[in-house]
Amino acid sequence: MPRSEPRGLPLITLLTDFGDRDYYVAAVRGTILRMAPGAALADISHTVDPGDIAHAAFLLAAAAPSFPAGTVHLAVVDPGVGSSRRILAACADTQVVVCPDNGLLTLLLERSEEVTLVSVERSELFVRGPGSTFHGRDRFAPVAAHLAMGGLLESLGPEVTDPVTFAAPPPRRGARRLRGHVLHVDRFGNVVTDLPCEWLPHRPFTAAIGRLRTSRRCSHYVEIPHGELALLCGSLGTLEASMRSASAASACRVEAGEPIQIDFG
Amino acid sequence: MPRSEPRGLPLITLLTDFGDRDYYVAAVRGTILRMAPGAALADISHTVDPGDIAHAAFLLAAAAPSFPAGTVHLAVVDPGVGSSRRILAACADTQVVVCPDNGLLTLLLERSEEVTLVSVERSELFVRGPGSTFHGRDRFAPVAAHLAMGGLLESLGPEVTDPVTFAAPPPRRGARRLRGHVLHVDRFGNVVTDLPCEWLPHRPFTAAIGRLRTSRRCSHYVEIPHGELALLCGSLGTLEASMRSASAASACRVEAGEPIQIDFG
Amino acid sequence: MPRSEPRGLPLITLLTDFGDRDYYVAAVRGTILRMAPGAALADISHTVDPGDIAHAAFLLAAAAPSFPAGTVHLAVVDPGVGSSRRILAACADTQVVVCPDNGLLTLLLERSEEVTLVSVERSELFVRGPGSTFHGRDRFAPVAAHLAMGGLLESLGPEVTDPVTFAAPPPRRGARRLRGHVLHVDRFGNVVTDLPCEWLPHRPFTAAIGRLRTSRRCSHYVEIPHGELALLCGSLGTLEASMRSASAASACRVEAGEPIQIDFG
Repeated sequence: MPRSEPRGLPLITLLTDFGDRDYYVAAVRGTILRMAPGAALADISHTVDPGDIAHAAFLLAAAAPSFPAGTVHLAVVDPGVGSSRRILAACADTQVVVCPDNGLLTLLLERSEEVTLVSVERSELFVRGPGSTFHGRDRFAPVAAHLAMGGLLESLGPEVTDPVTFAAPPPRRGARRLRGHVLHVDRFGNVVTDLPCEWLPHRPFTAAIGRLRTSRRCSHYVEIPHGELALLCGSLGTLEASMRSASAASACRVEAGEPIQIDFG
Repeated sequence: MPRSEPRGLPLITLLTDFGDRDYYVAAVRGTILRMAPGAALADISHTVDPGDIAHAAFLLAAAAPSFPAGTVHLAVVDPGVGSSRRILAACADTQVVVCPDNGLLTLLLERSEEVTLVSVERSELFVRGPGSTFHGRDRFAPVAAHLAMGGLLESLGPEVTDPVTFAAPPPRRGARRLRGHVLHVDRFGNVVTDLPCEWLPHRPFTAAIGRLRTSRRCSHYVEIPHGELALLCGSLGTLEASMRSASAASACRVEAGEPIQIDFG
Repeated sequence: MPRSEPRGLPLITLLTDFGDRDYYVAAVRGTILRMAPGAALADISHTVDPGDIAHAAFLLAAAAPSFPAGTVHLAVVDPGVGSSRRILAACADTQVVVCPDNGLLTLLLERSEEVTLVSVERSELFVRGPGSTFHGRDRFAPVAAHLAMGGLLESLGPEVTDPVTFAAPPPRRGARRLRGHVLHVDRFGNVVTDLPCEWLPHRPFTAAIGRLRTSRRCSHYVEIPHGELALLCGSLGTLEASMRSASAASACRVEAGEPIQIDFG
């Protein structure tokens, strides 16, 4: 079993559905800083819709690779808090994650080459806060702090190989057709897909994105003629359907999860 | 008079009603980092409704206990900026607070055992920024930085014992009835009350929360049958009315401040 | 050419239109922390409307002066990403900025006395991330990290003297009349203008702010009678039209950019 990465300065990111009007994120921050003095904190997002595991899984997989090796990512979107769902700690390539076992790791695991997963069972690490409902503060935060301070992943509990994952149907590549899905619609209305950019051959194509079609490929948003839809290679290395200074998602009327298709001669 | 707590790394939290679209929070951050180089900053919240002292007081009392001893909490919800309202610095058990004297400390003081309060009068600590309206930047931030860098609370001004507090009617406990209030409705629609969990006896009860009633008690959200309302012990150690994957507050039609009642045989 | 300021602890602020629901801000944070280990990060804002360069320019100019000398401000509101627009690095008095050359520096440069500007051309500093659309992560972040770690501004590329600026019509001062503009409407509804406070003489005046008029001057918000409009000297040292516990901007029906006028005897 690989050991967790050697680490530099302790760095912990936070990804939750706690919003920005409650005290929940602050309680997690405080607990971490109490148990890992001097650790640096960085937010991924706290405005995931309540319980939207798929969106959180997307954000985690998209953001984690940018961080330094050994960064600990604390992801708490946990509609099953208090059930028998496990707490997982993972080392996925260079990144460490602590999260509930509910599918949050789905996309990150798919994109990682070397993975170690353990079920966290060292309950003496947990804090006994008031109530029994706030595992983010009382369980996840102390475990993340422990790992950030150099605690070994393997010491937290038994290795597991059966994490909960949600069905993320893979994109498919045929001789004359690509079939994929909308992974995400971003703030600018860009339609991020799961189709790797290199799958699109350098010949004429027609992409069907919701109710619109396009045969145009661009390198940058500014090359897209106003009012038109185009494909370009987005920041995850996957195809993205975009309009210039307008929401492609609104124009196409698509949402995360919907299928898209590209045909070529 | 007790001395302020010995401190580790300087850590300052921020709680304001400045929102996230103005430069006000950034100006406070910059001023603190200029005057307390190397201090770590952590947000509690900046999306308190403008002037909503009661909500800020709730967030402060709920979040502060999670932080390391000696953390300085800068709380600026200050509709009376520029009036004769005092600037307070407080040491409440292990936490230090700097805030306007307008009720922000109400709930934190109620929950603290050992409190020292001073009226900040050392105006030479203040910054002379442009204008006269931004005490968050020009007065509160320098005082918080001073305290975070080891300045003594007692050196800031005379001790006071009459902080402004708002009327927070206490919950009442009878032989067959509990009467309390809604403290807060969180992002998930949970109805957080001021009734200590241990007041609810282990026998049948009927709780009236707005227009709904429930006789069910659960330990975790996932135990609540879909569509039903239940009480559980929330993360502040007080009773909480919740529904599973739905907003109990919307179903009950209650808001912060409203009374609730629990009867038992 | 002046050298960039000597610096203390590396500190980088972030100002973007990336919002808080995507992974974009996190990817920028991660990249900076990977390339500038131990740097402290502070947010200015991420909720600038997509592509709203004027608002971002306002926030940057307003927030930057509060930060310690040598702070690096990374400002990415970049609707022209991928076009031939340059990447600028600037030293404006004590502050360092990295941003696209699209007008973001307009207001900060107006308010700075000593300015050095270079066009960043050392492409070997850039990261080769997936795709070609995310210069915030792949270009701006590494340049900001480089500067925060002590890299010299002058080493990044040739000095330039022709940054893109947007037309910010200056306020005008006559013998009996001031003409200015609404710079910003803040969360509280305060109407921030570009008229320096000291231009308003100490004699009777009538200010026309949208559809309302006022002859009242106050020092603090609490001095304004309820329901009335007044001028005071705001936190940027410019005149501000305000109401007490109400939105002056809504009452006056004005927005950023609109003209205002003050007449005096």
